[in-house]
Order: sequence, then C-alpha cells, then structure tokens
Amino acid sequence: MLENSSKTDLSSLGEFGLIDHLTKHFEIVNESSIKGVGDDAAVIEYSGKQTLVSTDMLVEGVHFDLSYVPLKHLGYKAVTVNLSDICAMNAMPKQITVSIAVSSRFPVEALEELYSGIQAACNNYKVDLVGGDTTTSLTGLIISVTAIGEALKEDITFRNGANDKDLICVTGDLGGAYMGLQLLEREKSVFKDNPNLQPDLEGNDYILERQLKPEARIDIPILLKALGVKPTSMIDVSDGLASELFHLCKQSDKGCQLFEEKIPIDPMTYDRARQFNLDPTLCALSGGEDYELLFTVPLADHEKIANHPDITIIGHMTPRSEGLNLITKNLVSAPLKAQGWDSFK
Amino acid sequence: MLENSSKTDLSSLGEFGLIDHLTKHFEIVNESSIKGVGDDAAVIEYSGKQTLVSTDMLVEGVHFDLSYVPLKHLGYKAVTVNLSDICAMNAMPKQITVSIAVSSRFPVEALEELYSGIQAACNNYKVDLVGGDTTTSLTGLIISVTAIGEALKEDITFRNGANDKDLICVTGDLGGAYMGLQLLEREKSVFKDNPNLQPDLEGNDYILERQLKPEARIDIPILLKALGVKPTSMIDVSDGLASELFHLCKQSDKGCQLFEEKIPIDPMTYDRARQFNLDPTLCALSGGEDYELLFTVPLADHEKIANHPDITIIGHMTPRSEGLNLITKNLVSAPLKAQGWDSFK
Repeated sequence: MLENSSKTDLSSLGEFGLIDHLTKHFEIVNESSIKGVGDDAAVIEYSGKQTLVSTDMLVEGVHFDLSYVPLKHLGYKAVTVNLSDICAMNAMPKQITVSIAVSSRFPVEALEELYSGIQAACNNYKVDLVGGDTTTSLTGLIISVTAIGEALKEDITFRNGANDKDLICVTGDLGGAYMGLQLLEREKSVFKDNPNLQPDLEGNDYILERQLKPEARIDIPILLKALGVKPTSMIDVSDGLASELFHLCKQSDKGCQLFEEKIPIDPMTYDRARQFNLDPTLCALSGGEDYELLFTVPLADHEKIANHPDITIIGHMTPRSEGLNLITKNLVSAPLKAQGWDSFK
Repeated sequence: MLENSSKTDLSSLGEFGLIDHLTKHFEIVNESSIKGVGDDAAVIEYSGKQTLVSTDMLVEGVHFDLSYVPLKHLGYKAVTVNLSDICAMNAMPKQITVSIAVSSRFPVEALEELYSGIQAACNNYKVDLVGGDTTTSLTGLIISVTAIGEALKEDITFRNGANDKDLICVTGDLGGAYMGLQLLEREKSVFKDNPNLQPDLEGNDYILERQLKPEARIDIPILLKALGVKPTSMIDVSDGLASELFHLCKQSDKGCQLFEEKIPIDPMTYDRARQFNLDPTLCALSGGEDYELLFTVPLADHEKIANHPDITIIGHMTPRSEGLNLITKNLVSAPLKAQGWDSFK
C-alpha cells in the first residue's frame, strides 16, 4: 500500500508544514475541547467531572505488519485501542493526541492514509484530535496515542472492586481478532513462498475485521447506565480473556470460576480455529486484541443484564483462596493460566 | 553507559513485571492525581480549572545520541521538555505519562537509569507519573511523554494574543544548549578519530548542563502572577528564538522588532561560540533547546518586569505589515529568518 503513484517526500513539507497538512481537515466537535492542535498544549474543560488519561504505543514489526495492514486501518486501530482503555474505566473518551515517528521511506501520501484512518475513528467515536508530535525515526513507524476522557466520579470503575459472588460478564465475542491474525499470517507466508498466488481471504470478513478494524465499546458505559448497573470492576480484553481475568482477580484480591461453555465465540471464529487445528477456547482465553469489555456486577444485578444480547455472563468471582479456575465443557475444574500477549517474549 | 556490570535481560521481567519494576518507587504527590499507574487509565480531578495536555516524542539517533547522553539525563530531559510546553501556556504541570519502546540491547539496568532521571524530574517539579506503556522496538529507544497540567481559565496564555507595541520578553539566557551540543559533538568526533583521548569537557559545566539537563521554567507562571502580569502570548524556546518569534507573530498576526544587543547570552556561551567561529547571536536565534519562555506583555506592564533579573525585554511587536525585523548591534534593520530546528531536514 506504500506504492502510491504520486509520492511526496516528507522533507518537502518540513515538521510544522506536515502537522498542519495532516490535521487541517480535523474538526473539533466536543464543547470540552477548548483549544486543539496549534499551541504548546491543548486545553480541555470537564466541569464537574473527573479526567481519564490513557496512552499506548504501537511499533511497526512488533504490533503491526505493514505487509498486510492497510495504513488507514492502522490509524483507525491505533485510536480504537486507546479509546478502549477509557471505556474500560466506564468513562467516555473525548480527546486524543497522536505522536508519530516515521522513517523517510514513507511518503506524505502514506501518512495521509494513516491520518484518514485516525480521522475516521475520530468521526465515528466523536473524539477530537487536540495535539501531537510528528518526527523522524531511523527505521519504521511508531505511533503513540494518548486518549483523554471524562466521567462522573461515581461512575468510574477500577480493576480492584470485584466482590465474592459477583457475576463475570463480557461483551460481544472473543477470539475473532486472533483468528483474523492467523489467517493474515498464513496468507503472508503463502505469498512469500509463491508471489504469484493471490491471497485467499474471501468469506472471512468478520474475523479479518476483528483484527484489522476493531471497535472500542464506547456504547457499553452508556448501556450500563441505562440498565442501572454500576460494574464493580472492569478491564478491556486486549491481551486475552485469561490475562484480563488475572488482572481483575489480582487487583480485587479474589478468585474466579469461569465456565468454558459460556465463553462467547462467533461461529466463524470457531470454524477457522478448528481448520487451523487450534482450540477455539484457547483462542478466546489467550488470543487478545478483541477490545471487548470484561466486567463484574453484583449478583443482585443478574436480572438487569441476563437477557441483553450483547452481554454474556461467563462465571463468577470467588474468595482468593479458591484460585482462578476454568470449568471445562465436561465439567472438570482446571486452574486457569494467564497467557496474555507479552511483547517482550 | 550501557556497560553495566550486571545486566538483566528485559524478557526476564515481561511487560507487566517491567512496568511494575520501573514505577514502584514513584509516589503520588498531587491531590489532583486520583489514580495513577496500574489501571486502564489514570484519573485526574482539577475542580474549577481547565486541563492542559501536551505530548512529545524523542527518538534515538534523531533527538539524542546515547554515546554522550547519560540515560538518567535523558529521562530527566524527556520530562522537562514536555513540562515546558505546559509552562508555555502559563499553566502548572501536574501529571505525566511515559511510554517507551526499547530494543533488546537495553538491559533492565539501563531502563532503571532512564527511570531514575524521570523520577528526579518528577520530584523536582512535583509532578506525578500516572501512566504509560512499555514495549519492544526493533532498533533503538523511543520515549513518548504526555504532560497534563492545570490553570484557571483566565490565566491560560495562547500564542495568538500579542498586540501591537507589546513588549517581547524572554527568561534566562539563550544559545547555551546549542553550544553544549557543539562541544559534545566535537568531543565525540575527536574520540572517534582517537579512542585513547579523553573528552575535554572541563570548565564547560554551564553549557553542558543547558544541553544535557535543561530545566522547565515552572517558576515563571508563578512569578508572573506575583508580579501581576498576564502575558498576551507565550511559547517556549525549543527550536530557537527566531522560530518561536515566527510562531507568535504568525498566530497573533503581528510583526516585531527584535534588538540584537538585548538578546541575553551567557558569557560562556558567547566565548565558546567565538572559539567555534560561530556568531553568538545566531546560536541564540537558531540554536534551540534552551526551554526558556518567550512572551509578550502590554507596554503598560513595563515597570512590573523591567527590573526583574531573570526577564529580559528584547523588543516589541509591530503591525504585521512591518514584518519581522532584527535591529543589529550597529543599528541596521534586517529581516528576521526562521531557522528553527526541523527533524525532517
């Protein structure tokens, strides 16, 4: 996707020209964004609310592979994964800053593609780009996004508030993003062996979209409020269900019972996992990048959420002494293993 | 400085272990920092004030050279340059997030050094580290810092408020950081040619410190308030006096007259510039990285600031039509050139 017909060298715009060029079509939509791009700092005002801040860095070759990730999708995803962290506090993202370091092999047109994805995410989630930095790197592309959001103090949900017997809930379905990645990696290696073969990605739209264009569950804080539910703990599923459950249990000083048969897995994810000789449950537990929300609610709230089509109750919290356990489909209890994604491994 | 006697491989700690390890000695000192490192996002509350957000990315080989920049100083400077942006809004920095991408050639001990500098800056400026991200890079070290601060709405100073006849003021002195860099670059090339020679840096403490350990002028917003002065525009000197003046003039739609003889230059900066056959004025105009504050005040405030030892009046604003001019020491008026630092050149 870097082979654009017209290429403009980065140095032709200069640092300030480049920032202006890339951000000129971004409009401010939130009243809380008092001052956006163009000064030493952005100015934000959330009167009567608390401010949430989260930051993530994406590195080419570590977090993404430009041989199969379109730059527009990458821009969209870089925003999504940060907004997801704000949603995971039961809060609403309102602003982002984006810093990129980029080597001279990228023409201006490539960065325009990247920023068109950033803008698509800003439009979709109604967040404002209010600042950032653009600089050179010696190799590759690095994207650092900071998301800023707001919430009433009483709504903010931490990782450490889960109680014994609380229901464990998850939104959407899991494992799809991981299967999308497996598919892309397979097609990449097929292409490497025989550059004349076209990639065979047809009929896999759902899992490819889960990997390439994940969505932040900005709808969930609103839904929970409408249902009258305040979660006791919450986290987003970036590293895999098992890893996130470990965080909630550790910080809440609790154990858990997770029921394998309850874990929501889309039929396509299930089928492709089987085709790849992978255990679909393991894909959900350890795959990561689904960006669904995992949260606990008091048992008394069972009625309020039990019938919502987008929320699945997958287990419950226990005393810490009972440990973290997976109840398998044949009703065997096995200790849960944390196998989240670790970029240092 | 990477040749520590004991080296611990990054992968031995893993991603979560590394964050915990590096941040465990950081204490929260500001009441506004409700929740720091350890959840999906940090929580901040500035009741009755506006929030400032600024972000910067530093890339090895582009912004710093580890062959002469100690990692501790680098950590300190990475924080300083971001706090400086908040100060340049006439606001007070209160929190930072730090994301780093680092290749496996860095042992844990190197990152401990880096974070000891970050912590020294946090302690010195009383700001809290409230979040961040730690990941691998394929080559080198990348540091992305986001600074968050607060100010009363009426105190915040933008770049665009300067009026005709406003006095142009600058804090401290200029050009020192640039001369420190020249000295370090010279010693590096001497060492390259003859590795047996020891670097000759004695007697240059001031300019070396200006380059390696710059300070953010967190004292200036407080001082200006005490003096009863609200600047009409403000910016920090990161790219050089000329470049910053261009920003103020462009955004305020004004011109300026800058008096060469008024530009504050430390005697050591002056001497070393002469030794390097450089024009000291040009070092101040185009050198950058001094992180002093450049601001304009109404002519009526002349008395309030004229005698302050740390503030120098270097010129005044004019109508835009008169352009940006430097009045040289022999009283010739010459158009000012913007030659700020541009990482894409």
